[in-house]
Amino acid sequence: MSIAGVVEAQFAPLVRAVAGEELDRTAIAERFARAAWTTVAEPGDRDAGVLMQALGPPAALERVMSGVEADRLVAELADVCDTEISPDQWTDALKRWRPRSASAPALLALRQAARFGMRLLVPGDDDWPPQLGELEAHAPFALWVRGDPGKLGSLARSIALVGARAATGYGEHVTIEAASGLVDRGFAIVSGAAYGIDGAAHRAALASQGTTVAVLAGGLDRFYPSGHEQLIGRIADRGVVVAEVPPGTTPTKWRFLLRNRMIAALSGATVVVEAGWRSGSLNTAGHAATLGRPIGAVPGPVTSAASAGCHRLLREFAATCVTTADEMAELVPSAQHLTTTDDASPRDSNPRVLSDPTGSRLRVLDAISDRTPRRVERIAELSGLALDRVRAELGLLELEGFVLERPSGWMRRKQT
Amino acid sequence: MSIAGVVEAQFAPLVRAVAGEELDRTAIAERFARAAWTTVAEPGDRDAGVLMQALGPPAALERVMSGVEADRLVAELADVCDTEISPDQWTDALKRWRPRSASAPALLALRQAARFGMRLLVPGDDDWPPQLGELEAHAPFALWVRGDPGKLGSLARSIALVGARAATGYGEHVTIEAASGLVDRGFAIVSGAAYGIDGAAHRAALASQGTTVAVLAGGLDRFYPSGHEQLIGRIADRGVVVAEVPPGTTPTKWRFLLRNRMIAALSGATVVVEAGWRSGSLNTAGHAATLGRPIGAVPGPVTSAASAGCHRLLREFAATCVTTADEMAELVPSAQHLTTTDDASPRDSNPRVLSDPTGSRLRVLDAISDRTPRRVERIAELSGLALDRVRAELGLLELEGFVLERPSGWMRRKQT
Repeated sequence: MSIAGVVEAQFAPLVRAVAGEELDRTAIAERFARAAWTTVAEPGDRDAGVLMQALGPPAALERVMSGVEADRLVAELADVCDTEISPDQWTDALKRWRPRSASAPALLALRQAARFGMRLLVPGDDDWPPQLGELEAHAPFALWVRGDPGKLGSLARSIALVGARAATGYGEHVTIEAASGLVDRGFAIVSGAAYGIDGAAHRAALASQGTTVAVLAGGLDRFYPSGHEQLIGRIADRGVVVAEVPPGTTPTKWRFLLRNRMIAALSGATVVVEAGWRSGSLNTAGHAATLGRPIGAVPGPVTSAASAGCHRLLREFAATCVTTADEMAELVPSAQHLTTTDDASPRDSNPRVLSDPTGSRLRVLDAISDRTPRRVERIAELSGLALDRVRAELGLLELEGFVLERPSGWMRRKQT
Repeated sequence: MSIAGVVEAQFAPLVRAVAGEELDRTAIAERFARAAWTTVAEPGDRDAGVLMQALGPPAALERVMSGVEADRLVAELADVCDTEISPDQWTDALKRWRPRSASAPALLALRQAARFGMRLLVPGDDDWPPQLGELEAHAPFALWVRGDPGKLGSLARSIALVGARAATGYGEHVTIEAASGLVDRGFAIVSGAAYGIDGAAHRAALASQGTTVAVLAGGLDRFYPSGHEQLIGRIADRGVVVAEVPPGTTPTKWRFLLRNRMIAALSGATVVVEAGWRSGSLNTAGHAATLGRPIGAVPGPVTSAASAGCHRLLREFAATCVTTADEMAELVPSAQHLTTTDDASPRDSNPRVLSDPTGSRLRVLDAISDRTPRRVERIAELSGLALDRVRAELGLLELEGFVLERPSGWMRRKQT
């Protein structure tokens, strides 16, 4: 019996229950296969990602469940896949997946999901966060969601606030100021719902009536850490809680590390507020760096071990020093012109900037703050343009009245 | 009567008294002229620097004292000087200098200097700090010195520790730890003897039996600030106190700013420990940046206004985040291999590194710490070499046993 047949018979009602829309048979098979893959492979399993991309999730799942041999898989993939994966690697992958290649765990997961009112999001859904595509073959197979999945589709203007569980009063104070300041500026706050900085970030976002997203490392049938059960429940009520592992999965060290990549990938920038020298938050920052997302680090007393990781990010990873919600907001380049996309903004009031053919004028403008003067070198760095190009564009922007030069650098002119 | 004649008659005994060595008539005239120039022109006066470079200090002084016209000066300089200075600019300079073009102030300055046991250092003296040459036409005309001038000749291994007068307990604590740690590593501590961070830096250096240099903005006949008279006296006894203005000069706002350029120019690196948003220490850091010297900033709580200037340096001026004496020591590139220039050091124990024809292997080695792992990108930045060159040299250095790769980057291997 084919996967599609099995699905039709046993799982269709459950798959329908956790989908947000009407589904045809193909869509049900696809959705079932993705749900099943979250039970078969660990998050970020690149071989699974490659196989699904090559054959589609249902066929990929069928091969694994039907006990295909590595050699046959290699032969089949030769025509449809240009990723080089050796036969040995497929042998290992199949070995890894086989013990979990049964339909019972997927059935259980879907039942639990339906019972808890979860949604299952898959790529292509309206609410699927497009930025996860940058994870390529490491992208999640599907997302298990509690709360409003619509909040996941609009995270371009979001910042991850993460940090140590063993936060100090200073760290929590800074986190609360940052989260509420960012919410006031229209940002969603993404974090991991852990004790310490994460919890303070979610709480402050909720207190400011903002959007907040908790990304968990375990299944959403049981919130972890248990001391944050109520908090995570409130996030599910008023924001959204998400995991790539199915209900019933315990959070493990490995899953926390992979969860961190999701926090980084979902957010426009990652800010580490407090972190010890070897804190897991540095791992989140590392994922953000790999994805080319901006990293901010909040400095603290050099006498505080809880800030040592932040200082390390500043020294070794060229993180940006951020001290206020404004400075954090500036990390997210696309959000910078969103800030000024009102009637009085330069982009709207003057079509010349929009008719900029190479986009370099807009990139230069995006790299200029209306609060902090910046030197030409820094603008070049932020905009990724050559110094002489930046100088030329600055000259034009100054003529057009968008920017002005101060002794310590260039600023946006406030539009009146 | 020529300058030389005037000098011979009136000033020779005084000039001899403040010189550290035997002098012939030419040397006396040169030294007198430089002393007189410190009374005629303000520190950093570029026109004076250009004129002295073109004609020599005595002839330059004679022109000004004899009331030369700007046009004649332009004509005379046309042959010997390729710096473009317009006739109007010379007119302005002569106007500026004329009110002070008398020998009485120089006489008074030399008398006071002799009375206080000062030394007058001029370029070419053994103890003249060669790094001041990088100030070019803005270099001091001469240095008035109290204490051991020998300590000025060996500041390659030195760090300026500067910061706010309104320091917090945190800032003073960090300064004391840093200064004593740097002294333990063989560094001299340069600072400005102000209240707050400066005073803490000098005191900790003295307490650790280290070398410390105070650069003052006013004449050395009267130490400023008066509350630090005893401290500066102790620095003169056990270290060295230096000014480019003659005795009898009051410290002014302008002279403080120019004094800051001396602090930056004398030191291998400048570290700002605590500074408000508009602190004068940022000016010192700015001078260091202009001279291409490394700048370090000590982070602090974002809730402390006394750290706002340091965070600004990290954000806007790409200062290096420094949290310990070790990290400050690493700022000074030449000091890094001085640290290991003992019998066991790679440079001595293995001639292959020294026979490195382009110097790039040594530059790579210099950019690697034995304490903090560094990524290839950072090593490229520190060594100023291309990434592929750095990778190639790292490979060779690893083969030769000088460096090792850790998960977070490359480190020097401790030599046994």
